[in-house]
Amino acid sequence: MEIKVLKDILGANEQIAGINRQLLDSNNVFAVNLMSSPGAGKTSLILETIKRLKGKTRIGVIEGDVSSSLDAEVISKEGVPVVQINTGGGCHLDANMASSALGNVPLKDIELLIIENVGNLICPAEFALGEHKNVLISSIPEGDDKPFKYPLIFHKADAVLINKIDLLPYLKFDTEAFSQVIKGMNEEVEIFPLSCTTGEGLVQWVSWLMAQMGKG
Amino acid sequence: MEIKVLKDILGANEQIAGINRQLLDSNNVFAVNLMSSPGAGKTSLILETIKRLKGKTRIGVIEGDVSSSLDAEVISKEGVPVVQINTGGGCHLDANMASSALGNVPLKDIELLIIENVGNLICPAEFALGEHKNVLISSIPEGDDKPFKYPLIFHKADAVLINKIDLLPYLKFDTEAFSQVIKGMNEEVEIFPLSCTTGEGLVQWVSWLMAQMGKG
Repeated sequence: MEIKVLKDILGANEQIAGINRQLLDSNNVFAVNLMSSPGAGKTSLILETIKRLKGKTRIGVIEGDVSSSLDAEVISKEGVPVVQINTGGGCHLDANMASSALGNVPLKDIELLIIENVGNLICPAEFALGEHKNVLISSIPEGDDKPFKYPLIFHKADAVLINKIDLLPYLKFDTEAFSQVIKGMNEEVEIFPLSCTTGEGLVQWVSWLMAQMGKG
Repeated sequence: MEIKVLKDILGANEQIAGINRQLLDSNNVFAVNLMSSPGAGKTSLILETIKRLKGKTRIGVIEGDVSSSLDAEVISKEGVPVVQINTGGGCHLDANMASSALGNVPLKDIELLIIENVGNLICPAEFALGEHKNVLISSIPEGDDKPFKYPLIFHKADAVLINKIDLLPYLKFDTEAFSQVIKGMNEEVEIFPLSCTTGEGLVQWVSWLMAQMGKG
């Protein structure tokens, strides 16, 4: 019974996500669903991505948070359109929330939409939003055992960004083993070690992103 | 309608949590619900706590994970009884899961039960398990804005452990401002800056814990 209800919820979500994707496609907007633990660096990555793609593509952002609008305020200073979703206690975005937000995004004026999901490695993996690619940030201080503990989100990711590599000298983290485990779960995944603090690896990330948009 | 259902769920959870607490009390077991983001250091803290309280109190552990039993295996090497709960996709423990696990914990043989919740700053805050104290780990690399973004879990915490202070030289984190924000949300909270890597601050944490158990 419980499983049936869950299937219905997820089925309805997939349907709305499909409608969102059609809306994005009809406006030639490429959408990324950006997921991570709290504090892994989603907002920092968005800021660095906006800076590096200035003049190359037009970006919009949907910010997902439980209650605040701190990140949306920081991002709007970069001069890109930002729409805030507050889940009011909910631990993930869903396609219905994304649909409401999309109605407030100037889709005609952008080519790339980055949707910052709620900081959580569990439920966001279950709810498609209409995105074209799922991108997961996993940061060095979280430890290299995360793929074993949160397998679904690593399995669903099109790209995994290993953030905060500037902290590698101070922490135990086997980047090679971590990457091999992810590749074992998800053969097609792209992996980008990077640091939003030093800028290392960000060129590779934005090049991949532009290539996905057909601007490679 | 949706709010009503949620109230019913939380009401039923509170009731089962109350029964769990009675069972713990009748066995003179003090229970801690340990919560944090993924990779903030819950398992490391449990290991360090077991080492420091060896011979002073008898400890048992309930491990909550989405699917793996990696942490339970590490902890059981310390010679304490460990019971694993796998939520099968669920993003938090609830009182019913805790009740099932309690049936497998040798309550007569322990005085302190540490329940490691699923790595998540959102839903674990909403579901009481029967614990006597809620303890939250918030680690330096996550950033000092977390109380604004995940207010409920900071509001419910009896103690906040600021972990990974050995990384303070390499990251922007204002410990004083962070502590003031938490105190503003939660006047009674105890705050312990510490590092499970260097051991700094752990004496203060275990002293507080023993005092809560009436062994101060």
